[in-house]
Amino acid sequence: MYILAPSVLAADFGKLAEDTAKAREGGASYLHLDVMDGAFVPSISFGMPVIASLRGYTDLVFDVHMMVEDPGRYVESIRAAGADIITVHQEACTHLDRVIGQIKASGAKAGVALNPATPVSTLECVLDQVDMVLVMSVNPGFGGQKFIPYTLDKVRALRQYFDRKGLSTDIQVDGGVNRDTIRPLIEAGANVLVAGSAVFGGDVKANVETFMNIFKEYER
Amino acid sequence: MYILAPSVLAADFGKLAEDTAKAREGGASYLHLDVMDGAFVPSISFGMPVIASLRGYTDLVFDVHMMVEDPGRYVESIRAAGADIITVHQEACTHLDRVIGQIKASGAKAGVALNPATPVSTLECVLDQVDMVLVMSVNPGFGGQKFIPYTLDKVRALRQYFDRKGLSTDIQVDGGVNRDTIRPLIEAGANVLVAGSAVFGGDVKANVETFMNIFKEYER
Amino acid sequence: MYILAPSVLAADFGKLAEDTAKAREGGASYLHLDVMDGAFVPSISFGMPVIASLRGYTDLVFDVHMMVEDPGRYVESIRAAGADIITVHQEACTHLDRVIGQIKASGAKAGVALNPATPVSTLECVLDQVDMVLVMSVNPGFGGQKFIPYTLDKVRALRQYFDRKGLSTDIQVDGGVNRDTIRPLIEAGANVLVAGSAVFGGDVKANVETFMNIFKEYER
Amino acid sequence: MYILAPSVLAADFGKLAEDTAKAREGGASYLHLDVMDGAFVPSISFGMPVIASLRGYTDLVFDVHMMVEDPGRYVESIRAAGADIITVHQEACTHLDRVIGQIKASGAKAGVALNPATPVSTLECVLDQVDMVLVMSVNPGFGGQKFIPYTLDKVRALRQYFDRKGLSTDIQVDGGVNRDTIRPLIEAGANVLVAGSAVFGGDVKANVETFMNIFKEYER
Amino acid sequence: MYILAPSVLAADFGKLAEDTAKAREGGASYLHLDVMDGAFVPSISFGMPVIASLRGYTDLVFDVHMMVEDPGRYVESIRAAGADIITVHQEACTHLDRVIGQIKASGAKAGVALNPATPVSTLECVLDQVDMVLVMSVNPGFGGQKFIPYTLDKVRALRQYFDRKGLSTDIQVDGGVNRDTIRPLIEAGANVLVAGSAVFGGDVKANVETFMNIFKEYER
Amino acid sequence: MYILAPSVLAADFGKLAEDTAKAREGGASYLHLDVMDGAFVPSISFGMPVIASLRGYTDLVFDVHMMVEDPGRYVESIRAAGADIITVHQEACTHLDRVIGQIKASGAKAGVALNPATPVSTLECVLDQVDMVLVMSVNPGFGGQKFIPYTLDKVRALRQYFDRKGLSTDIQVDGGVNRDTIRPLIEAGANVLVAGSAVFGGDVKANVETFMNIFKEYER
Repeated sequence: MYILAPSVLAADFGKLAEDTAKAREGGASYLHLDVMDGAFVPSISFGMPVIASLRGYTDLVFDVHMMVEDPGRYVESIRAAGADIITVHQEACTHLDRVIGQIKASGAKAGVALNPATPVSTLECVLDQVDMVLVMSVNPGFGGQKFIPYTLDKVRALRQYFDRKGLSTDIQVDGGVNRDTIRPLIEAGANVLVAGSAVFGGDVKANVETFMNIFKEYER
Repeated sequence: MYILAPSVLAADFGKLAEDTAKAREGGASYLHLDVMDGAFVPSISFGMPVIASLRGYTDLVFDVHMMVEDPGRYVESIRAAGADIITVHQEACTHLDRVIGQIKASGAKAGVALNPATPVSTLECVLDQVDMVLVMSVNPGFGGQKFIPYTLDKVRALRQYFDRKGLSTDIQVDGGVNRDTIRPLIEAGANVLVAGSAVFGGDVKANVETFMNIFKEYER
Repeated sequence: MYILAPSVLAADFGKLAEDTAKAREGGASYLHLDVMDGAFVPSISFGMPVIASLRGYTDLVFDVHMMVEDPGRYVESIRAAGADIITVHQEACTHLDRVIGQIKASGAKAGVALNPATPVSTLECVLDQVDMVLVMSVNPGFGGQKFIPYTLDKVRALRQYFDRKGLSTDIQVDGGVNRDTIRPLIEAGANVLVAGSAVFGGDVKANVETFMNIFKEYER
Repeated sequence: MYILAPSVLAADFGKLAEDTAKAREGGASYLHLDVMDGAFVPSISFGMPVIASLRGYTDLVFDVHMMVEDPGRYVESIRAAGADIITVHQEACTHLDRVIGQIKASGAKAGVALNPATPVSTLECVLDQVDMVLVMSVNPGFGGQKFIPYTLDKVRALRQYFDRKGLSTDIQVDGGVNRDTIRPLIEAGANVLVAGSAVFGGDVKANVETFMNIFKEYER
Repeated sequence: MYILAPSVLAADFGKLAEDTAKAREGGASYLHLDVMDGAFVPSISFGMPVIASLRGYTDLVFDVHMMVEDPGRYVESIRAAGADIITVHQEACTHLDRVIGQIKASGAKAGVALNPATPVSTLECVLDQVDMVLVMSVNPGFGGQKFIPYTLDKVRALRQYFDRKGLSTDIQVDGGVNRDTIRPLIEAGANVLVAGSAVFGGDVKANVETFMNIFKEYER
Repeated sequence: MYILAPSVLAADFGKLAEDTAKAREGGASYLHLDVMDGAFVPSISFGMPVIASLRGYTDLVFDVHMMVEDPGRYVESIRAAGADIITVHQEACTHLDRVIGQIKASGAKAGVALNPATPVSTLECVLDQVDMVLVMSVNPGFGGQKFIPYTLDKVRALRQYFDRKGLSTDIQVDGGVNRDTIRPLIEAGANVLVAGSAVFGGDVKANVETFMNIFKEYER
């Protein structure tokens, strides 16, 4: 029911296959992959060739977060590289319904992400069309940021909306997620939790297990 | 005198540290790193976090080719990630002298790259200011291309210019370089040769050694 | 009361004057003209010279849908070419109030269009200022799409808003409109219906008459 | 309690120090500085060097309105030039929370501006984070416009929101503010009023005093 | 040997098939089609649907001049619409060799166009790769301009280059071509002449015949 | 024969009229006005309203250097504000001949500017059409730069070209011009010299006189 999505951004790019295998051993089922283009966000992280190489090593669900302008340009190539879920930003899509359609047509699940300042209401036409909503709890692509508490309100509003509609749409949170912040997030309604340094800093397997144990408290 | 710059783009991103160590063993002294932003070229490859991770594993010269728009934005962060040489495209810089100055001020060596269709004359004001000129022998960022023979003319023209000026500026060629095309390139005046699948496809160490042996023929 | 706006995009551009004359004979009073710039949407359709030529042949109301970025640049020239109504996209205008003002100052009627994913609430400040709202029921500029049913909710919400305010503002729908989908659209509150291949595929005059007869059912 | 912010745009740039000193004498405490980049708005007004020169002459609060695209690029340099308040447009910021954070980190107060057509709801995530909201009552950067009455609704909605939350956030109005329009603005909830030609046209000191007297009616 | 390319831009878009048939009768073998996107040039003319409709009516060689930014985006769709020759602007292509390759791979002939101020030397790497060079003798997309005499120098330089190389590459001139200016153009080395109002203003067939007769003087 | 163009950028924007009057008294006949848009260069300086205010105080020749993208957008408004000479960057103009034509049609003299890295050959088609060429001897819009010596080669090449053609076109140099660098510039062929802090730092009138005295040495 609760899913941990370790973020590759905090892993060691010299031995990615090894690091992700450890996350898998600990019980993670997703791998969060932040594609940054240096335009939507002020950094370039990695893209198609990195995802495609890694695809050969693991059966983890590849959960790709497109921090890129006009992501419709890359849906097919990101899918071909191995993405299982493709999440695009509301702020980056002029034709959002079209991009969601493209993702689904490619065979991947479709997610939509919201920057901290972007209201949930901007998605009101497409909430019923997506498989996941990603609530950013820090500003994507900028370093050294703390968890932004007001984003919890959006998690709550989304969970209420999906419950009311009888939808089991996933709500993902990314940014500042760790052992301290995870409980309020789960209680607000998030069920897919992205963690970076909290997973890849130190003993990867043990870190993942800690999260899995917290999840068990809520899954009873 | 001749330098092989194996291109990481053809390596296995699941075990980059291992692949690059093999290239080092074979005798390579450079590592060519193609940063693509999905705007200057239609793909996103990798950027700062991948370079920074890899920096921890090797003392190879990091030769970073910025296939990005307005690369001045990223000179400092690419340098901080571990670049030793930073090469920017003439076509991507409105203020090319300024970007060359930024690279030098960062402590890196400065290179300028030319797309296949871009004449050498576009660089006439700055040829004496750079440490390396990169002549692209395929169109950057597009797959499945063959070596473009007319780019040899630019290598020749550049070598003649530098010889006339008494400059030992490096001339790098990237695109379709392999055991068959390398001799005409060296004879035209190139001395830094980028090779991707010709290095990382198959036995990496042996592949590098093959190139090193060809270099020896010319270094006598 | 109900208006058919045959879309020139589906006509034969070899004999536009003839095709539009047939639509006129069948009883159409509007002609829908989709201007595409290859930037807001991924195709270039036609612009000022085509509209200006056609203006010499007919007194149909020229209902111009600007699928272009920053349409304020072209309001005056599109009006001069013969537009009677100029509709711009909410998603394409940073200064939407300004563009509406420009259109009115030019002497044309002003419309605002919404992509499928764009909520009605984005227009809340300007709904009382416009002559028409265009609800896109497919993604503009992409081929081979089906009518998107959730856009009916926006038609309903708009008609309720205008009724509550005592406004007779037109509500136009564009995308997948044909003999099968038109009744639910009219019942939801649309009164200006754009039809392309349903008009220009086959006997143009007869096709228009079929629509006019459906309109009569609702006008009694 | 009520603050007059004379807009330098209407002053004489040949003797700015003198003109602003007169506004200060009349009782103004703010100086409104409209930075325009020719991209967000179709004119270039002035920027860092003008602000920095003027900073040497006066202790007026420098209230800088950034009518620029991607204003995050300039927060630090505008602050260094002497800004006390930095206001950015919702329409110009992809990462609005980030820019607000940048402004605060620089030591300035943070404002957010809304174009006439932009709903208050676009700010719902950040209203509690800002020191001031600027409601544009004309379209920024275009000449010869009249006060747009429907923008009063946004002033009212904002004041109600802040009152309900117990917040004393400033509400600024800019565009067409003069002796005739100022009372409905104050009554709607605005407390920082920008005035251009109504201050700098004629006797600057006397003009300011007229506004200060109107303020006194409401401050009792 | 000499080719007249009547420009559709001056034709009547209400009866294009008829107008182009008349040009054909008079002896024209090309039809010049100016695609404008409102970004590379400040007007939107027509695009794919207009070309595709017209393709059904005539076997004239469709000579498409792409006055568009980043024309590589549209090579395949313009070819599918019926283009036989596709000409792109040097100023619009970052990856010019790539776009020329795309055009050839599509089965069309490849042309490159130069704005009046753009030197021939910008093409020095690709002159041997193209089927045609288009020398603009007015600024593309702006109305009411006169033939710019200095562009004749570029025609001469190009013809000398192609003669020296033994190449029969076509040299096209577009802008202000009429009965008065055509002789110096032919004498300078142009062999494909674009004419707009000089063809479509008045008796189309007779106008074409006049040009054909001038051509005969030079073909003897 | 030699002209000093004091750059307002180094003046005191609190008392511009006074500072420029002093430059006039010292014997300057031009005033250099650097308009920066924050896009072509990374700063916003000043634009139309500042120029228009200053126009009321002086009959100095207003020599406006447009460090802006796509300057054609602003030719008419900059001329209306009071410009006598309008200089645009080669790097900023896709349609350079068109912009030169616009400037001349407005009644102003037309200049073209070259960044340090931009070769003179890029102007070969338009050198005979302009009234002035501006050779930038620092990178425009970036602070703290030293005079770039290699730009002297471009001044020499231009003067030789104009002498050969019998043209008296002005050659302006901007960047790091002071009492030490001015002699080599004059000897290379420059005749319009821009100076900022060398004029406005300290006694303005005396500074100008120093330059005028140097000019006299060469005018004998």
